[in-house]
Amino acid sequence: MDIRIATRDDWPGLWPIIEEVVRDGRTYCWPVDAGEDACRDWWMGKPGGSVYVAVDADGSIAGTAELHPNQPAAGSHVANAGFMVASRASGRGLGRALGRHVIEEASKQGFTAMQFNAVVATNTHAIRLWQSLGFEILATVPGAFRHPDLGPVGLNLMYRSL
Amino acid sequence: MDIRIATRDDWPGLWPIIEEVVRDGRTYCWPVDAGEDACRDWWMGKPGGSVYVAVDADGSIAGTAELHPNQPAAGSHVANAGFMVASRASGRGLGRALGRHVIEEASKQGFTAMQFNAVVATNTHAIRLWQSLGFEILATVPGAFRHPDLGPVGLNLMYRSL
Repeated sequence: MDIRIATRDDWPGLWPIIEEVVRDGRTYCWPVDAGEDACRDWWMGKPGGSVYVAVDADGSIAGTAELHPNQPAAGSHVANAGFMVASRASGRGLGRALGRHVIEEASKQGFTAMQFNAVVATNTHAIRLWQSLGFEILATVPGAFRHPDLGPVGLNLMYRSL
Repeated sequence: MDIRIATRDDWPGLWPIIEEVVRDGRTYCWPVDAGEDACRDWWMGKPGGSVYVAVDADGSIAGTAELHPNQPAAGSHVANAGFMVASRASGRGLGRALGRHVIEEASKQGFTAMQFNAVVATNTHAIRLWQSLGFEILATVPGAFRHPDLGPVGLNLMYRSL
């Protein structure tokens, strides 16, 4: 498993992973019917952002992450990031590998901390992963995510210094 | 003092207020040298957003607020908002009047809660105002704002239900 910077040419391999996560609607505040162009801008078009791909030995993309400043200017030293893994590649520690890689990259880029603004409170897999990588829940905004099965659930603000 | 929806035609009256706040750099994570077009897009161009102006008896704009969904789709029932008052109009309760107006408007638009993601921890005037209007500090992200005089200070996540 190789993790490297993504290029625009990687989009055809990225889109099925992003589409799967977006259509599912249980982990991201993103319209479940969002089109491909909107998703590409969202994942690859953030100001000051970097996108990474986890590539299998056969060259296929199994997961992706994006790293960007959480705020502009006076807040730009704190990073934000997003992570997605193909369901076919789950259980292989790919989220953890991407997480470690992005934490290291963020540190190299000069970020001094990383925060996630909207970790769905029912996404226990992700919460445990981030806690094991040093993040803590600073706050839960009550009912801020309308879960398609469960109704309103919290959104966690998670944070770690770098 | 009349508070009403802003139109694009209000921009020439809005810009001096926004420019003053942005150039000051002590309350918003926005580049202090940001240009007029970027500021207009930022204040008036948010998806699903509404902009308000507080207008004096002589027709001049003394303050402004913007209201928009904090997240898209599954998170779009929680509002976010920004507020700016001209320094020449400070001390007249304009921030409070705008705050009350926007809380009422958000409720009318169907939002069920409102959150601010980045209230600078040294902006005690704003923090007290929001607390008096029912907001609480859910979390402080440590050192997330590089204050031009004080160095890194916290950014508060403030929240109230509607």
